[in-house]
Amino acid sequence: MPLSEFAIIKQYFQRDFKGDSVILGPGDDCALVKTPFKEGQCQALSMDTLVAGVHFPVDTNPADVGYKSLAVNLSDLAAMGAKPIWFSLALTLPDVDADWLALFSSGLYSLAEQYELPLIGGDITKGPLSITIQIAGVVESSLALRRDGAKEGDKIFVSGALGDAAVGLTLLNGSAPEFSAPSYRHRDNLKYLKARLDRPSPRVSLGLELINVASSCIDVSDGLLADLSHLCGRGSLSDRSSLGCKGSLGTEIYFEQLPLSAELRAYFEDSQLSELEKAKLVLASGDDYELCFSAPEERREEVAAAASKAGVPVTLIGKFTEAGSIRCIDANGEMLDLQHLGFRHF
Amino acid sequence: MPLSEFAIIKQYFQRDFKGDSVILGPGDDCALVKTPFKEGQCQALSMDTLVAGVHFPVDTNPADVGYKSLAVNLSDLAAMGAKPIWFSLALTLPDVDADWLALFSSGLYSLAEQYELPLIGGDITKGPLSITIQIAGVVESSLALRRDGAKEGDKIFVSGALGDAAVGLTLLNGSAPEFSAPSYRHRDNLKYLKARLDRPSPRVSLGLELINVASSCIDVSDGLLADLSHLCGRGSLSDRSSLGCKGSLGTEIYFEQLPLSAELRAYFEDSQLSELEKAKLVLASGDDYELCFSAPEERREEVAAAASKAGVPVTLIGKFTEAGSIRCIDANGEMLDLQHLGFRHF
Repeated sequence: MPLSEFAIIKQYFQRDFKGDSVILGPGDDCALVKTPFKEGQCQALSMDTLVAGVHFPVDTNPADVGYKSLAVNLSDLAAMGAKPIWFSLALTLPDVDADWLALFSSGLYSLAEQYELPLIGGDITKGPLSITIQIAGVVESSLALRRDGAKEGDKIFVSGALGDAAVGLTLLNGSAPEFSAPSYRHRDNLKYLKARLDRPSPRVSLGLELINVASSCIDVSDGLLADLSHLCGRGSLSDRSSLGCKGSLGTEIYFEQLPLSAELRAYFEDSQLSELEKAKLVLASGDDYELCFSAPEERREEVAAAASKAGVPVTLIGKFTEAGSIRCIDANGEMLDLQHLGFRHF
Repeated sequence: MPLSEFAIIKQYFQRDFKGDSVILGPGDDCALVKTPFKEGQCQALSMDTLVAGVHFPVDTNPADVGYKSLAVNLSDLAAMGAKPIWFSLALTLPDVDADWLALFSSGLYSLAEQYELPLIGGDITKGPLSITIQIAGVVESSLALRRDGAKEGDKIFVSGALGDAAVGLTLLNGSAPEFSAPSYRHRDNLKYLKARLDRPSPRVSLGLELINVASSCIDVSDGLLADLSHLCGRGSLSDRSSLGCKGSLGTEIYFEQLPLSAELRAYFEDSQLSELEKAKLVLASGDDYELCFSAPEERREEVAAAASKAGVPVTLIGKFTEAGSIRCIDANGEMLDLQHLGFRHF
């Protein structure tokens, strides 16, 4: 007989730690959470869904699915400079598979425990596999890193490295068959690139250090160009095309300065990819979960100090310009053709 | 070209009202919410998912789906005596259907506006149709209505009427073909019963009035017996079977006292249903979204006052007894056989 919802929660989703703030955890109609508010603090809230076959291949290791479900939400808090305080989980499962649940919850908690983040409740339903997580953090209202704070002349930075996850996905998809031979000399690189897809590192500590330093910030989930366009636009949900930034800022990005991992560089060297294909993987593919942020020139040392304190490399990649488009300059000083490199959910 | 996620939010999910607490609504990495905390207050948080084909028939009017998605979450807040403050929405859609979205959002906002409840953010993804809502409310920590407060001798009450939605579902399923003739004299009753399935009334005002009055409370979503069993058990997620209540309280429910709507009574009269089938619809079928709560004998007048103030009828249906099982007594003083009347998600 399959496990009931309560039995699933008890067996897979209960841990000893519940944080200082949880008065009542899973099992009642609601969770009760005491939020440790100080004067001027507010809650930062984000919700992300991962759907099997859309956001991850159906045969992905469930531990990776569990990890990533939480990681993408932590990444949203990182982008606001918020400190995570709790999360809730809506899990829709086609059936009760004990092995799947054990792996999923182990991956989920490997990250939750790292942040001492309590799971306060949620829902378990029957249906096509998908995972929705609501995450909450705290941040001082006036200091939260927002998308709309950049000014002309501000420098643009990105954390970590770009493009790894996009290549990881092409490898999974089997669209790079030349690398499937067991004799391929850089097989460890491929593992690394796939791991960057499955287990992105949310830059929470960097986000916290960027408070009072960055003028705007976003996490790179839809590809650098698409997410950068949000930093160009003024006001949330303003009317703009994905590369247009009409009536707001433009950017100049130096392609040669974009941070690429050693593993990605080796892969590119071994690959048959054209320069345009490489640019597309680095600039316009999703799942990096790095932070892209801006800061005025005079804060460059503070940016470096924040990166060092967080233990996350940060690279200067360009600057905001007056109203105009997003431009990307290659090593020869020529503009890359960015048409049709964007990303849309639908 | 289909609408982008931003365009969908802008067109269907933005309203002028955003409450006093929302600093930053949809469009950034996170929403920023200032929770109006007083000393001793906490947040009550609930999350529910509705999956097409599981929780509602795929051809349900999208306006009803929108309404009900929020209603079931409001019902969880009601069951804790919490005042709603915000909600977030994770919407997974197979494709962007403008008509569907217009209807869905109109149903959703018809209820949200009634409670002046701001939508603070969420996610829109591509995949099999499902809706997850996270709702937040505030309640004084020490006064929240919990599942674990009932004591032996406490009276058991239920709001509104039971069984309407369950019959509404059998009508939708076509499992009561004798009522499909256009000449059936009580067709308006059938409409009413279906509406109770599609548009349940969350008992938020009653929940607020029951603060300091009820000793325990739950919303009846899985059927009275299954939900009552949670009030019997001590502590959340304690080990118990659905009708067992091992090591905790028992109950005595008087079947003849259960509140049935006039529409349901007329339907039962016209139907060929056996007494057992009727009992199953009333006691062990889901989607009532009424409150089931307990209060000590000496608070019966306060219960009546709370019901009157909230404008919701409340009926005494039984009492908690010492450790034992859930028992239901019929008009002849005999015990109904409750075996196999429970509800399980899987």
